[in-house]
Amino acid sequence: MKVKTEKGYSDIRAVWFENGRVRMIDQRELPHRIVIVDFTEYLDVAEAIRNMTTRGAPSIGATAAYGMCLAKLSKKDIKKAANDIKAARPTANDLFYAVDYMLEELEKGRDPIDSANEYAQMMIDKCTKIGEYGGKLIDDGMKLMTHCNAGALATVDVGTALAPMRKAWADGKRFFVYASETRPRLQGMQLTAWELNQEGIDHAIIPDGASAYYMSQGVDMIITGADRITSNGDFANKIGTFDKAIVAKHFGIPFYVAAPISTFDFKMRSGKEIQIEQRSEKEVTEIYGHRIAPLGSPALNPAFDVTPADLVTGFITEKGIFKPGEIHKVRQ
Amino acid sequence: MKVKTEKGYSDIRAVWFENGRVRMIDQRELPHRIVIVDFTEYLDVAEAIRNMTTRGAPSIGATAAYGMCLAKLSKKDIKKAANDIKAARPTANDLFYAVDYMLEELEKGRDPIDSANEYAQMMIDKCTKIGEYGGKLIDDGMKLMTHCNAGALATVDVGTALAPMRKAWADGKRFFVYASETRPRLQGMQLTAWELNQEGIDHAIIPDGASAYYMSQGVDMIITGADRITSNGDFANKIGTFDKAIVAKHFGIPFYVAAPISTFDFKMRSGKEIQIEQRSEKEVTEIYGHRIAPLGSPALNPAFDVTPADLVTGFITEKGIFKPGEIHKVRQ
Repeated sequence: MKVKTEKGYSDIRAVWFENGRVRMIDQRELPHRIVIVDFTEYLDVAEAIRNMTTRGAPSIGATAAYGMCLAKLSKKDIKKAANDIKAARPTANDLFYAVDYMLEELEKGRDPIDSANEYAQMMIDKCTKIGEYGGKLIDDGMKLMTHCNAGALATVDVGTALAPMRKAWADGKRFFVYASETRPRLQGMQLTAWELNQEGIDHAIIPDGASAYYMSQGVDMIITGADRITSNGDFANKIGTFDKAIVAKHFGIPFYVAAPISTFDFKMRSGKEIQIEQRSEKEVTEIYGHRIAPLGSPALNPAFDVTPADLVTGFITEKGIFKPGEIHKVRQ
Repeated sequence: MKVKTEKGYSDIRAVWFENGRVRMIDQRELPHRIVIVDFTEYLDVAEAIRNMTTRGAPSIGATAAYGMCLAKLSKKDIKKAANDIKAARPTANDLFYAVDYMLEELEKGRDPIDSANEYAQMMIDKCTKIGEYGGKLIDDGMKLMTHCNAGALATVDVGTALAPMRKAWADGKRFFVYASETRPRLQGMQLTAWELNQEGIDHAIIPDGASAYYMSQGVDMIITGADRITSNGDFANKIGTFDKAIVAKHFGIPFYVAAPISTFDFKMRSGKEIQIEQRSEKEVTEIYGHRIAPLGSPALNPAFDVTPADLVTGFITEKGIFKPGEIHKVRQ
């Protein structure tokens, strides 16, 4: 992704491997500072997934692959490392997909660095294809809406939901993006708006509750990412996605989900089987360590919700765009 | 309203008149501190409405009445004062209703303090009636949801949306309230949760985007306040209300609006005529003076949205509960 620095533009990825270390953008520091953190222990990589130093299903997958790579290079028990890394967060399918991928590669005797790099590059290539398929949906003058961050930060590079926007903008199309701020962690405000700003794509941040207001005034398309998509087309994504999908249906606005096939969980029949991570109430009641809620009032903080297939217009994948009923065609 | 202080419980109102001064809770300081501010100039009272020292349609109305009272006592031009106070905020009908009420009373030669006190007491009495009618809708074991603050703080005392909850709880019914935090100004988190906590009513704060998640798991009723209700039953309320009403409709959950008749604007035929206040983007991009958004990313901050009548189950007023099609019966 393009990042404006003091020396002009740099090209940077969300996570990569360099000189024996896993390096990543500390996404908790954005948009205020660009901080790169390094890890040499796989357990620290697992912790970086847990504490959301890096986040977004495909980036979590690549980070997990690099974690497995570190475990192998430092001669740790690979099976234990696989379990430790899988335990970091429960919802994103890519985490499990990537760890299993690395287990298979390492059992074949493949080089761990090559394997993890190939996994990360595979994600970038998939996202590029998602951009090509999805970019065709976007026309000049459109108003789009997205939620949370399914951009380059979430996917090593390029993005899922943002990939069609990057491609369309690069092709000279001009449109406008509403980025809903995505409480409690504000990934829409702090990551998506930051990425759109780096790319020069016209946008504005809106409160999550302003979706119906703007959709009622005319939004042409919603595109979000996904953390896990089940066989029937139900999908888990950041809390607030379900609300937007219902509101989009109410107004007849197309609702697309952009995700690589690594996000599809063909073992699950429906969204009812998806485990939703409940995160600390402090993410809601505190901001920058300052309590903003009344003392004595508890908060609830489900990290994801599950949107049923019937609210989805199509899934934008690296193999094309599929309706919920066509998911069997996506299967590799 | 009951307020826990160091000396036990105090009974306090959102706004009142004492020793020649208009006194009010500075709601911007809640839930951290209970700060009472005093005003002797009507222009400062208008500014307190504008900068949201006090807020909520009925409290704005009472504050405006006290502002008119100050103008009269200090022998200011009453017509000019009426215009200055009406210019403070555009959306809440009560502001205009209260100023016109005071103009009429003062023209009759009524005592300004008595008139303003009567106006404020009238609001409290209306809210008490709203609590009696609405309280009957609440049963033991229910899960309720509300948005923003339509509590005692918003209505001098008792509340509109919270009045049925106060009454039902006082009657011994036990239920649970989801208070959605209400970005950008967090009135749900900082005012509603604070009031529910003072009353000992079971509740939790949720992010605005968690509405569909919890409604899908079973919510029995939504109750919100309103800033303006038009003849056809469309109503303006805090941004995010429209989203919740659409989601409630999707799940078949009853959606009630609690408001005194002063909030009905019979001159407006539909919500299309309601002017929506656009507030500073800083309310979205900053928190406690600290910028949380990327530099260069703009934000949009509509303070209200308009929910169409067909999403409303009923209006809970001091005269009873009315369906949108029965609004003509509400007219005084």
